[in-house]
This record gives sequence, structure tokens and C-alpha cells, in this order.
Amino acid sequence: MNVSPLAPKEFVKLQALDGVKMQTVEAGIKYSGRDDVLLMIFDEGTSVAGVFTKSKCASAPVDHCKKILTNGVAKALVVNSGNANAFTGVKGASATDQTAKMAATAVGCSPDEVYLASTGVIGEPLDASKFDGVMHDLAQGCIGDNWHNAASAIMTTDTYPKLATSTVEDSDILINGIAKGSGMIMPDMATMLSFIVTDANIAPEVLQALLSQHTETSFNAITVDSDTSTSDTVLLFATGKKGAQISSMDDPRLVPISKALNDVMHDLSMQIVRDGEGASKHVQIDVTGAVSDASAKKIALSIANSPLVKTAIAGEDANWGRVVMAIGKAGEEADRDKIAIWFGSVRVAVSGERDPDYSEEQASLAMKGDEIFLKVDLSLGDGHARVWTCDLTKQYVAINGDYRS
Amino acid sequence: MNVSPLAPKEFVKLQALDGVKMQTVEAGIKYSGRDDVLLMIFDEGTSVAGVFTKSKCASAPVDHCKKILTNGVAKALVVNSGNANAFTGVKGASATDQTAKMAATAVGCSPDEVYLASTGVIGEPLDASKFDGVMHDLAQGCIGDNWHNAASAIMTTDTYPKLATSTVEDSDILINGIAKGSGMIMPDMATMLSFIVTDANIAPEVLQALLSQHTETSFNAITVDSDTSTSDTVLLFATGKKGAQISSMDDPRLVPISKALNDVMHDLSMQIVRDGEGASKHVQIDVTGAVSDASAKKIALSIANSPLVKTAIAGEDANWGRVVMAIGKAGEEADRDKIAIWFGSVRVAVSGERDPDYSEEQASLAMKGDEIFLKVDLSLGDGHARVWTCDLTKQYVAINGDYRS
Repeated sequence: MNVSPLAPKEFVKLQALDGVKMQTVEAGIKYSGRDDVLLMIFDEGTSVAGVFTKSKCASAPVDHCKKILTNGVAKALVVNSGNANAFTGVKGASATDQTAKMAATAVGCSPDEVYLASTGVIGEPLDASKFDGVMHDLAQGCIGDNWHNAASAIMTTDTYPKLATSTVEDSDILINGIAKGSGMIMPDMATMLSFIVTDANIAPEVLQALLSQHTETSFNAITVDSDTSTSDTVLLFATGKKGAQISSMDDPRLVPISKALNDVMHDLSMQIVRDGEGASKHVQIDVTGAVSDASAKKIALSIANSPLVKTAIAGEDANWGRVVMAIGKAGEEADRDKIAIWFGSVRVAVSGERDPDYSEEQASLAMKGDEIFLKVDLSLGDGHARVWTCDLTKQYVAINGDYRS
Repeated sequence: MNVSPLAPKEFVKLQALDGVKMQTVEAGIKYSGRDDVLLMIFDEGTSVAGVFTKSKCASAPVDHCKKILTNGVAKALVVNSGNANAFTGVKGASATDQTAKMAATAVGCSPDEVYLASTGVIGEPLDASKFDGVMHDLAQGCIGDNWHNAASAIMTTDTYPKLATSTVEDSDILINGIAKGSGMIMPDMATMLSFIVTDANIAPEVLQALLSQHTETSFNAITVDSDTSTSDTVLLFATGKKGAQISSMDDPRLVPISKALNDVMHDLSMQIVRDGEGASKHVQIDVTGAVSDASAKKIALSIANSPLVKTAIAGEDANWGRVVMAIGKAGEEADRDKIAIWFGSVRVAVSGERDPDYSEEQASLAMKGDEIFLKVDLSLGDGHARVWTCDLTKQYVAINGDYRS
């Protein structure tokens, strides 16, 4: 697997963060010659928030996390790659139970303080006994300064590990995050996982509100192929080491924390798009002038998910006709004769027809390079949204079709 | 352009049909060396019904047809390929006005008895003067036995002309139809045009009810890439030559006519899917046991439109994990632990997990050949639906990466 041409030029170095330690190991779940299990241990007093796939066929680990999230307290996180433990029936639930118990014993906590995530093949029973031999050593070996290994162990067909960090302005509060996604594990689909830890002291319900808010404009504003995994999980942990607890969304200390969290989540979600299967271009889509923000987002995602728009971008074709098509099919309010469309800074269409000053050369120029900016103005209202995607290339089809399970 | 491997082995021969004549010509709209304009002339007393794209950015010809359809009477049809006359602002409406007037003059009727359809590039103004020099000769040259040329003249990226015919049981009533479309195909719309003519005598409102009914299970039950055109148009003309007029849906004479019409529409819609851009496999998807028919159709289309399912089928991979994913993301009611999935006659999953008798060999065998049958049973209710699609191949990306500009 070649590294994505859109990969970061260098990896950010994440500092140890007060209240969390981690270790990885090779448990031989599917891969060989690489670590495939991550254990994180959190200090007493760590609160947790989560957002999960909206799939009606969610995986067993998602079921487990949703169930225990009501407690708002976390002591450990176990993530494996190679097997998603999804669509595995009663065996799946049994595997999560066993894994949580093993980790609880090794860490010294209750199973309902152990968060779980699995990514990889769907429909293969996960052999939880694989964890049995490694969990004790993992727990003993946990160290603070191990983020790069953590991000690497959760990869499936990601072509690079995804890490981001931010320091909260005017404070010593740190936010570290890792993510995986948009690579494919043969033969099953991409799953998006992200685990973010801060040493801030934030009550679970406030943590949840923060996470939900920023998910909308980060992980929920990216799309590679419109397909949704059964396992998508984002967990945010606050170890509570810095300052008195923040228990209200109105607490002014939250403002810079929220900003830093947004930075980390934005950074990670961009790294996921830039590792989109077969991606050769990173595409930012802005929709303005919609009747509402929700309407703008639906139109933006309709454009971002259109195979015809995505293949045109892959071919460096400023094919705004396909953008019109994608606006039209979104089913949202739009007046054909008020629409304007830009590629980069080049306005290609206005008032429902080709821009009178349209220049094929200029438009083509805007399609070069690996970052494409597409803007649509509907001239109807104040609704706006921004989403990100990548192009659709033959390499996407090759990655997802050129093998047998 | 290579002909689709799923093309019919031989073309059906359509007989002349009482009350309609047609001719094609090369007007040089975009292509050279091929006919790109079709004129059909209908005898006095021809009624008409239509279904159109639901796009919010419909083309100028769609606007024109919708406007005049209330009259229910047709004297002529003009179709051009090469330019969709969509997103062309006031120029677009002016071009349809001019074209309708030219045809009306040549044929000797009113412009609001002239139906129009255009397919091709979006956003380029259509130069209606191209029709000026050819319309008179076209009208003079119209003949009855010219269906193959008619179907060929309306092609764009189609790799073969699409024709179907059926004789109404126990009668001499004939139904002939032509269609075009191979990308941007999705229920309720499509870069999909179809024109069907019968010599039956049917009142416009009955004709409309028939057409709408069968569209749901034919043209609105196929998808190539989830993208929907601004120009989709299906028109059904009844020249009224055979028998007394049928003016009620309860007329028993309608039963065999309805069946024959359904046959023609099914045949044409299958030909469209089999000409899907880059298609190497024709896929039939049945969903049963849903809470309603509408829910079943939404789930079936979610599977049919999933890039991950479509690439797996291209790779002959019985990847039912991706089918589960597509069920889950549809947002419709589904109980993970009740789902069963078949490829062909091989049940690969049952009760929310891999079938205990799962055989990789058998499943792989079911993915060979160019017709794939996928079935999902949700075990929740009586809702069912059947849709058709094709696989997603590198060839799709190739075709759409350099179509326009």
C-alpha cells in the first residue's frame, strides 16, 4: 500500500498527557508483524463523552460503549484492528463482555469502566481469547509518551497514522487526539475511530455537549464515499488533572478549551479525508445562501457524495454542470436561476447560467493542485455549511474491488 | 467507446406503429458524423402523459413539457443529443420557445403541441438556430419504420440504442419504446429519456395514471450511480388508432395494455442499467420483510448505491459485510440480529451473523457471471421491493474523468 499523496509531510509529536498511559501489542488478530491492540489506562476521576455511528446495524463494541456511557466515567480503553466484531450476533456481545472483563481485571476496575472499539473485517467472530495472553503485560507496560504507537496500532488500511495536538490558550491544558479511517481493511469497509484525551477537568455532560457540537463540523462534515460504517466511534476523555471541574457550558474557561478541541478534531478529520481511499485531491465545499444551515449541509453533502462530481475533480475538469445536478438532486430548496458557482476564485456560473466572463483556462487552472475549493451560493437565505471530501479515482475502485475476500 | 459487455446480443426490430412517423438528422449540435436530432410526428388525436425529473434545477425542455402537458395533446416531439439545454438561464427558455415554434411551423401545429427533450452537456447555451435548417426536411422525411435510427439519434454516452416492443394480448394494439441513458441514473430522475408510443386509444388522465404506476417499478427502480439528471423525461403517447377511447382506469381493456406497457418499460429500464457506465455486472436486489414497501425500497436503493457494495460486486467478492453496512446506513427500521442475506441461492448470513453453513466456494460461485442476484430478508414485516443496478468499475471513473470540457 502506497502512502497517500496527500499525507502530512511530517508527523506531529504528541507530549505525554497527565492522567493517561497507553501501550500497544501484537495479538495476531489478523495482521502479523504489527501491533493490533491498544490499551489506554486513565487515572481515577476521568470523565468521558462519545458519539457513535447512526447505523441501524451497529457493532457489538458500539452497543457496549453506548450502554456504559451513561455512567460518564472511564478507566480504560481497548481498541483492536483486524476484526470489527460487527454482525457477529450473540458471539459479538460475548466477545465484548470477555474483553471488558479481562481489561478490568488487568487494570483493576469494573468492566463498565472499560471502553471498547474494534475495526476490521465484518462478520468474522472476534476471538477474545487473543487478548487473554496480552492484557496483563499491556497494563503493566503502559507509559505516557506512546501516542505514535497508539495511532499506528489502530490503523487498518490507513496509509499513515493520524495524530493531532493543541494547547489551550493561556493555560497548561493539553488536548491530544488520534484517529483512523478511510483506509480499507480487506475485505470490509472503512471505519472511523477517534480517541481524544485532555487533562482538563470537565463534567461528563459538558464534555458530551462539547464533543457533539464539534463533531457536526468535523467528523460529521467529511465524506469519502457516502458509506457509513457499523463501528464509527469518537470518544473524548477528560482526566481532570488541571483546575477545578467545569460543570456548566457557560463557564468562561470553556471558551479556549472548546477552541482547542475544535482544532484537534478539525485536524484529525482533515487527515482522514486526505487518506481517503485512492484520493488524489482534497476538496472543500462551501454552500452559502441556503434557506437554513441544515439545508446548506444537505446540499453540500449531495455535492460531496456525487460520483460524477468526484470523478470530474479527479479528471481536473471544472464541470459545474455536475455541481448543478448535485444541487438539484439534494431535494432542498434551490432556485436554478439564482445559483452561482465558484471553483477556487473563479466564478464559473452566475444567475443560473455560465458566467459571462467564463474562461476555460482560468477554470482549468483552479482544478490543478491537490486542494480544490468549490463554492456554491444559492442566494435564498443565510444558511451555510462547509464539508470536505476527496475525489473518486480508479485507485478507489482498485482498493475496494481488486481482491477477493 | 466499447459496447457494454451486457449489451443485448441482437436488437429487437420495431414495426411501424399506426399514427406516428419519425426522422433523424445530423444538425451538428456537438457530435459530428452521427444524427443528433429526432423528430416524431403524431396524427391528430394523440394523447400524451409524462413523468419528469424531481431535480430542483430542471432543464428548460422539462419546464416546457410540464407546462404544455396539461393540454394532454401531442402533435410532435423533438429530441436532441449533445446539449442538455440545462442551467442555461433565459437563453434556455428562449431556445425551447424557438425550437417549439420551428417544429410547429414545419409540422403544422401549435408550439404547445410540440414536446421537447435535450440531453448532453449541461450549462452550454443550446444554439436553436441549428434546428432551423433541418426542421422542414425532417418533417418532410418522416416515415413509420425508423425506430432504430430514432433510438440511435438520442444516445449520448450510451454504448447501444435501446428499443423495446410488445403486442397487447388478444388484440392488435402495439407498444413501441425507445430510451437512452447510461450514467446519472437514479430513481425519480436520470440522464434518462424514454419515449413510448402505442396505437391504443387512451384518454390523457388514464394514460398518465398508467405511466406513473409503471414508472415506480421500472425507471424509478434503477440506479447506476445515485446521480440524478436535470433532464429526465419519460413521455407516453397514445395515437388512438385502435378501438374506442378508454377513459377509465376500471376499463377491462386496460388490463392487457397495462401488462404490455409494463413489459416495455421494464425491458427499457433493464437495458439502461445494462448500459451503466463501465458496467460489467447487472445486479438485481430484492429486499423482503421490511416494515413497509417504501422502507424496503429505501434499503434496496441504499445497497444499490453503495460504492463499497458496487466495487465488491465488480471484484466478484461476496462481501455481505458491506451489504449489512448499507442496510444500516439507510436509516430505516432494521434489527441486526434478524437479517438474512443471499447471493444467488447461497445464504451467506442469517440471524445477524455468518450462516453456519457458509461456504466460501459456493458464495464465490454466485458472484461469477454477469447477472448477480442479491436478496435481503429483514424478518420484520411484509414490505418488499426490487431494484436493479450495475457494479462500479474503474471504467466508470475513466468515462467520467474526461467526459466534458
